[in-house]
Amino acid sequence: MTVNQEKKYRTEKDLMGEKKIPASAYYGIQTVRAKENFPITGYPPHKELIKALGYVKKAAAMANHSVGGLSSNIAEAVIDAADEVIAGKLDEHFVVDSIQGGAGTSFNMNANEVIANRAIELLGGEKGNYLMVSPTSHVNMAQSTNDALPTAIHLACLNLSNGLIHELGRLIFALKEKEDAFDDVIKMGRTHLQDAVPVRLGQTFGSYRRLMERDLKRIQRSVDQLYEVNMGATAVGTGLNAMPEYIDEVTKNLSEITGMPFKRAEHLVDATQNTDSYTQLSATMKIMAINLSKMANDLRLMSSGPRTGFNEINLPPRQAGSSIMPGKVNPVMCEVLNQVSFQVMGNDQTISQASEAGQLELNVMGPVLVFNLLQSFTVLQNGIRVFNDYAVEGIEANAERTKEMVENSVGIITAINPHVGYETAARIAKEAIETNRPVREICIERGILTADELDRIMDPMEMTNPGIAGKSLYEKDTDDK
Amino acid sequence: MTVNQEKKYRTEKDLMGEKKIPASAYYGIQTVRAKENFPITGYPPHKELIKALGYVKKAAAMANHSVGGLSSNIAEAVIDAADEVIAGKLDEHFVVDSIQGGAGTSFNMNANEVIANRAIELLGGEKGNYLMVSPTSHVNMAQSTNDALPTAIHLACLNLSNGLIHELGRLIFALKEKEDAFDDVIKMGRTHLQDAVPVRLGQTFGSYRRLMERDLKRIQRSVDQLYEVNMGATAVGTGLNAMPEYIDEVTKNLSEITGMPFKRAEHLVDATQNTDSYTQLSATMKIMAINLSKMANDLRLMSSGPRTGFNEINLPPRQAGSSIMPGKVNPVMCEVLNQVSFQVMGNDQTISQASEAGQLELNVMGPVLVFNLLQSFTVLQNGIRVFNDYAVEGIEANAERTKEMVENSVGIITAINPHVGYETAARIAKEAIETNRPVREICIERGILTADELDRIMDPMEMTNPGIAGKSLYEKDTDDK
Amino acid sequence: MTVNQEKKYRTEKDLMGEKKIPASAYYGIQTVRAKENFPITGYPPHKELIKALGYVKKAAAMANHSVGGLSSNIAEAVIDAADEVIAGKLDEHFVVDSIQGGAGTSFNMNANEVIANRAIELLGGEKGNYLMVSPTSHVNMAQSTNDALPTAIHLACLNLSNGLIHELGRLIFALKEKEDAFDDVIKMGRTHLQDAVPVRLGQTFGSYRRLMERDLKRIQRSVDQLYEVNMGATAVGTGLNAMPEYIDEVTKNLSEITGMPFKRAEHLVDATQNTDSYTQLSATMKIMAINLSKMANDLRLMSSGPRTGFNEINLPPRQAGSSIMPGKVNPVMCEVLNQVSFQVMGNDQTISQASEAGQLELNVMGPVLVFNLLQSFTVLQNGIRVFNDYAVEGIEANAERTKEMVENSVGIITAINPHVGYETAARIAKEAIETNRPVREICIERGILTADELDRIMDPMEMTNPGIAGKSLYEKDTDDK
Amino acid sequence: MTVNQEKKYRTEKDLMGEKKIPASAYYGIQTVRAKENFPITGYPPHKELIKALGYVKKAAAMANHSVGGLSSNIAEAVIDAADEVIAGKLDEHFVVDSIQGGAGTSFNMNANEVIANRAIELLGGEKGNYLMVSPTSHVNMAQSTNDALPTAIHLACLNLSNGLIHELGRLIFALKEKEDAFDDVIKMGRTHLQDAVPVRLGQTFGSYRRLMERDLKRIQRSVDQLYEVNMGATAVGTGLNAMPEYIDEVTKNLSEITGMPFKRAEHLVDATQNTDSYTQLSATMKIMAINLSKMANDLRLMSSGPRTGFNEINLPPRQAGSSIMPGKVNPVMCEVLNQVSFQVMGNDQTISQASEAGQLELNVMGPVLVFNLLQSFTVLQNGIRVFNDYAVEGIEANAERTKEMVENSVGIITAINPHVGYETAARIAKEAIETNRPVREICIERGILTADELDRIMDPMEMTNPGIAGKSLYEKDTDDK
Repeated sequence: MTVNQEKKYRTEKDLMGEKKIPASAYYGIQTVRAKENFPITGYPPHKELIKALGYVKKAAAMANHSVGGLSSNIAEAVIDAADEVIAGKLDEHFVVDSIQGGAGTSFNMNANEVIANRAIELLGGEKGNYLMVSPTSHVNMAQSTNDALPTAIHLACLNLSNGLIHELGRLIFALKEKEDAFDDVIKMGRTHLQDAVPVRLGQTFGSYRRLMERDLKRIQRSVDQLYEVNMGATAVGTGLNAMPEYIDEVTKNLSEITGMPFKRAEHLVDATQNTDSYTQLSATMKIMAINLSKMANDLRLMSSGPRTGFNEINLPPRQAGSSIMPGKVNPVMCEVLNQVSFQVMGNDQTISQASEAGQLELNVMGPVLVFNLLQSFTVLQNGIRVFNDYAVEGIEANAERTKEMVENSVGIITAINPHVGYETAARIAKEAIETNRPVREICIERGILTADELDRIMDPMEMTNPGIAGKSLYEKDTDDK
Repeated sequence: MTVNQEKKYRTEKDLMGEKKIPASAYYGIQTVRAKENFPITGYPPHKELIKALGYVKKAAAMANHSVGGLSSNIAEAVIDAADEVIAGKLDEHFVVDSIQGGAGTSFNMNANEVIANRAIELLGGEKGNYLMVSPTSHVNMAQSTNDALPTAIHLACLNLSNGLIHELGRLIFALKEKEDAFDDVIKMGRTHLQDAVPVRLGQTFGSYRRLMERDLKRIQRSVDQLYEVNMGATAVGTGLNAMPEYIDEVTKNLSEITGMPFKRAEHLVDATQNTDSYTQLSATMKIMAINLSKMANDLRLMSSGPRTGFNEINLPPRQAGSSIMPGKVNPVMCEVLNQVSFQVMGNDQTISQASEAGQLELNVMGPVLVFNLLQSFTVLQNGIRVFNDYAVEGIEANAERTKEMVENSVGIITAINPHVGYETAARIAKEAIETNRPVREICIERGILTADELDRIMDPMEMTNPGIAGKSLYEKDTDDK
Repeated sequence: MTVNQEKKYRTEKDLMGEKKIPASAYYGIQTVRAKENFPITGYPPHKELIKALGYVKKAAAMANHSVGGLSSNIAEAVIDAADEVIAGKLDEHFVVDSIQGGAGTSFNMNANEVIANRAIELLGGEKGNYLMVSPTSHVNMAQSTNDALPTAIHLACLNLSNGLIHELGRLIFALKEKEDAFDDVIKMGRTHLQDAVPVRLGQTFGSYRRLMERDLKRIQRSVDQLYEVNMGATAVGTGLNAMPEYIDEVTKNLSEITGMPFKRAEHLVDATQNTDSYTQLSATMKIMAINLSKMANDLRLMSSGPRTGFNEINLPPRQAGSSIMPGKVNPVMCEVLNQVSFQVMGNDQTISQASEAGQLELNVMGPVLVFNLLQSFTVLQNGIRVFNDYAVEGIEANAERTKEMVENSVGIITAINPHVGYETAARIAKEAIETNRPVREICIERGILTADELDRIMDPMEMTNPGIAGKSLYEKDTDDK
Repeated sequence: MTVNQEKKYRTEKDLMGEKKIPASAYYGIQTVRAKENFPITGYPPHKELIKALGYVKKAAAMANHSVGGLSSNIAEAVIDAADEVIAGKLDEHFVVDSIQGGAGTSFNMNANEVIANRAIELLGGEKGNYLMVSPTSHVNMAQSTNDALPTAIHLACLNLSNGLIHELGRLIFALKEKEDAFDDVIKMGRTHLQDAVPVRLGQTFGSYRRLMERDLKRIQRSVDQLYEVNMGATAVGTGLNAMPEYIDEVTKNLSEITGMPFKRAEHLVDATQNTDSYTQLSATMKIMAINLSKMANDLRLMSSGPRTGFNEINLPPRQAGSSIMPGKVNPVMCEVLNQVSFQVMGNDQTISQASEAGQLELNVMGPVLVFNLLQSFTVLQNGIRVFNDYAVEGIEANAERTKEMVENSVGIITAINPHVGYETAARIAKEAIETNRPVREICIERGILTADELDRIMDPMEMTNPGIAGKSLYEKDTDDK
């Protein structure tokens, strides 16, 4: 390593030749090569992933020291530097692109170089003097990208999942509140977007709540698998270059410093080459995205109008809806959730492709997989948070209008089915639609049922409880026999 | 070949051993092996593909005879047998599964065996006596699965595209009729499902028509590429085992007997290994599917109700909508089109995966690719036909209701924008929504515009022509200044 | 209902008019309308789904009878007819298309009509005399398509999953056998398709085995949710038209006659509108598909050759590989598994789209969703079975060749890393590659390590056990200090 | 607008209330609301999109001035401010998220506010004094988000497509150079990854070149549609609030200032609600991605090794391949291209979903659609550039090794097919594989063909030209008869 006169650059060298490095940069020649090779998205690695790799490097240094691989002073310096990475202090030195060839080796080397150079400084040396602390021999000791990076990904996902689960929990709470608040709001149920039979708006929100509760469980179950990590696998899972004592130690250390119950995967060759825990995680988020999108669509439908739509609920206005149409308020928080869902569904596609492309002992498509996986976490968490805060919590029901619509509907005729038979009911329904008259009126006119009977049978609230409507009908039915 | 006593089976033999073949079967041992190996979907090859391969075999036999490779009597018998395949007479003997390993070799061999055995019969021999007519040396002469099958696929797609294009043309015609019929039906335009500004229902159908016209062009353009075929390429595009004269001849023959302007691909190695013409075809159908689904969704929205939805148009009733709710009529023809669209979108996914999996000189994932490609053609053609016949052609507008909704809307306030400014207009809109009063009334009450001015500015039909509304406003505006 | 003179047709009538029905057909007018409306794929409903709906109808008739809704003789006739459906005797009368509008109402009505007409016959009446047994009032009593069909889907999936799980279990067993048989076969590990460090072929198969074990667990977990059904929900989950006693009874009956532990969903509105159990099931199969495809790709790579590829393993020959290239044997069973995987991935796409398109109280895109879901089960089960029987079980290792490749590789130099440092090792590797000489030779020549040391360090089998190689190195390392 | 004491903030107000704005910010209250509502991805709008919207705002101001809608001094100030946007000087003030609800209204308002405030400053006023220049009434005059933004998207795509087409052109050139350079390099062709028959490496690269040429044409054709824009459509395509003269003018102005031949869409309602030009663009990029991925996969296969793989070509080393395995060089530039392809394929999924979700007069999912569309352009352009520069241009062939493999192969036996029949050839092939002997040797030993005949028939270069091999064989054949 040499430093140029103006001290703006130092020069580093590897088997392929020399490269200039900005004097202030903690990264080194491998990082510079990677920057040159992969200027793809312009997005640096996710901050949670940088932090997670910091933890991994720290745990490895602790283990290597404890088994005698690293001297105390080097280990200490490496650990201190890793702590700065964990604290986010060196984020700006992580400059490789999110999408990169080489299965993440460049990102791992970026971390190795940043930690090595910072450690060198802490030991009083000058950046680039890798004889003091080597990115490969010391910082990466007993590791490969193929175990250090997956372990960091697991940790990053676990951290991100906390945020997602938190927001999902809040959404479930808010939906539950609406479920209770709207328990007595009767509205027309619609199947095929056509008038069907009444439901209570509380039941609608209860359906959303339960759906989200299942999503929460699915996420938790998928996330739980991530505690199994492949530290110690090194290149292909055979642990080559790593001592058994180190392998035992390193995962324990990681658990200790992160407070998470990590454990070593039983079969390290398997754990190194297979990416099914990621595809499962992404698939789980995709399922959630589908569900969120359905719910957002429903809210947009129910709030359509105000005058030429369903107008059953009001979403809180959040911004002027139009740069040209005054007074317009749009369901923007639902729309952003729909879009987040589409993003997550597309990300799942990329992740599936990348996962399928694994070959033999390694899946080299990890970087694009992880870029999309972490993005899914981020946009879901953000999207759910604002959807909850700015839409769900403020939803109001137009209870009078929804009640009126139920009463004017044809669908309530379903209730007289068991009393008069499907065919008779169908004839009345047809007439009601064609003449635009209430079914009740026609029933009485035709002498099919009395006003009194209709009061009992067509009570909308009654119709929304499993079995009640059926029961009363049945009792009448048998009385008649 | 030996025939068993009861004449129920004959026995055939290849390098791997013997197999029993039903005595009546025209297929042979390779087909039996394939049946055993690939019992996957239970769906035989698409009939159009069988027919197309018949044409290819016929064209090849003609060319081989003409260059001296096949004797007259064998050539004639093969051609006659191929004609029976073309006529669909031997469909039941094509028994290999649609999804198969081996890049379609089994399907090609199924055709070779069926034609050989039928030709043997025509020559007075007994099935299985391949010394008379050999499936490989005669029927498959100068061919490989890798050129014969892609050529057949091109032909099958061309035939299927005719049907699709025909139905699409009819749909465009029906949409045009509705465009004209609804030209004076004013309705509320909606953006974000929220009341916006008026449009004419004819404009809506005009949008669908033009969208479909673009889809038609896209299909035609994608299909046009299929006239380029790789006959003569044999195994990897180098034409090994095929004479130059044969290569010249065979494509000409195919053109002649099909009446289609086929031509030989310039670079046969390229044409043999790359599948981009299929992915383009599928992508084009996917784009169409997206557009069809959007249109079907719109029709479902506009026909929602009858009492608690938009109720702007009526779709013709096609069947009782519910096994429990009497009188219910659902937009079933739109729903089936949505589903066809989803099927095509999923098929495109499979096709993309299969295409990406090509390796070196061949894409061995052809069978699943083609299964999905041909299915997309079929379901699109069928779906569009019934959607057109049973839904679009019978659509009626509820013109009175749509007019009423426009007049009651808040969105028409946009028209006064340039006269009074966005901010003033927004205030009036807000008041109208909160008090549930007409914007017109408030404008007059507040002395913002006179009744007369409002008549001119807020004329709904005026609002639906580009520039007209703007123009009158502007003139007034400048007059006032 | 009238029967025409030649007795070839009878005529049925509904509110929309009359239709001719083939005299022998058990289906009725609703089915005929549906056939006309939805001639989309040409594929009838999946046999397992027909059977499952038979069970549902039987359970409902039992419950309706037990709570007094159906008289004994009608109930008995309906149950007997349903039993024939269950036994597959009436399959040919299920003629509606797999893809249909109307959320499956047509399929439900097809079942109702077939059972009604068969029951009428059993009671001595003539088909079409629905006064005896009505498709809607009797067979469909207290049901809606929206509860009967989802319940049938659950049952069909459960039955199909048994087959899939069985085949997956057999595959796991076969992989385990190979894992054991190949435990001492050393081979070169490859990352990035580039020579890395040695693994044992048994470890490779162990990785596959464990991957499949996780897939099995995922499937089982997803399938377990299906025991929760929404029978009694009727149209939108409110149970309208169904008596509470019936609701209690019907699911119990279903459990009894199927031997499966079904239970009623707690929240029937939720269970009726949400389709997340299907998307989860499909996502789980997609994950499995990705994993199967990766494994199939690996086997194709390892068996590539025979002379110009990796040639590490032999797959059993299953059929002549080429119609033109003699002696060619292709990995057709792997290829068909790849294609099955692509099909399942595309199906998941369609299912996701269909699921996202649910609106309010119902997802009307059920038919296309279910068509793809059941197909995924079928092709996976079939694909795995033949892959296992005709490929995995017969795999042989070319142990001598794989050993030789390890010994000639450069990658084994990784083992000397900790002894001489990464940089020195890299220099030797570079020289070995450039001069095409063994690394061992260069190490000795350069005096870097002795032959003896190299014997210990570079023992390939040693290199494949986590930590062993690392350990011996370390001990040497510390000795030297 | 008021400014707080410390001058750190100003306060703006709309119908929903007040918000603090950083004093230095050019954006205003609508932007602040959007920032609060949509903190989703953390990515600001694409720089090309900001620039493009600057052009649109400039063209609109010019047109509004020319038809008398904007006074000269306001128009000038707006145009000057728009010029600064075009020059990228105000990029940091575009702070709304790439994914947002409201169909891009927030991004449009961000531009309107930035331009208004900058114009106010240029006119000597203080930011926030919208009486001088109003974001809505002046900057957005005669526009809606629904025409201004799509027009900007078209312009941005056109600009980005230039870069992509340039890189694709360079790649085609580089592939052509390799095609020429490798024209005489004979190598084994492989189908099913199994030895097939010889090809020339130049033919392989010719296949890639032609594939890319087709991709180029597809892109150009898709891009050409973008010259049609919907400026003047305003909210829903009816041009409400825009004067006809303005509508005529604005697109001409845009053409003039950008130098691109824009023209007004014929049917503005269609052009405003349909997004098929985007889905086509994305589908075209997806097709390209599939093709790029296939090519990258081939290069990775052919360069596999160095000692235990195909080792037919060498890719230029770009960086140390491993943090643990010394001397390892990986095909990182191919891997990054694979990943770019997967990203584009996933983006296409999101775009398809978003496009399908359009409803009635507008597709409100535009933001996520455009985010993915522009990203696809960017990553493809970057990915192809580095793949070309750092991989393709430096590819070298291992011609000696590839020749040797051809000569040792069994596949060359195909050439004797027509001379001796498929069955005889197959027997020899089988023996060759089982005994590991050359086919040539066996042929001679068995007296099937003479050494001399074999020299003519099995000349590898001969085998790679369509027809030649076939011809010579045939002539021999007929001689014999």
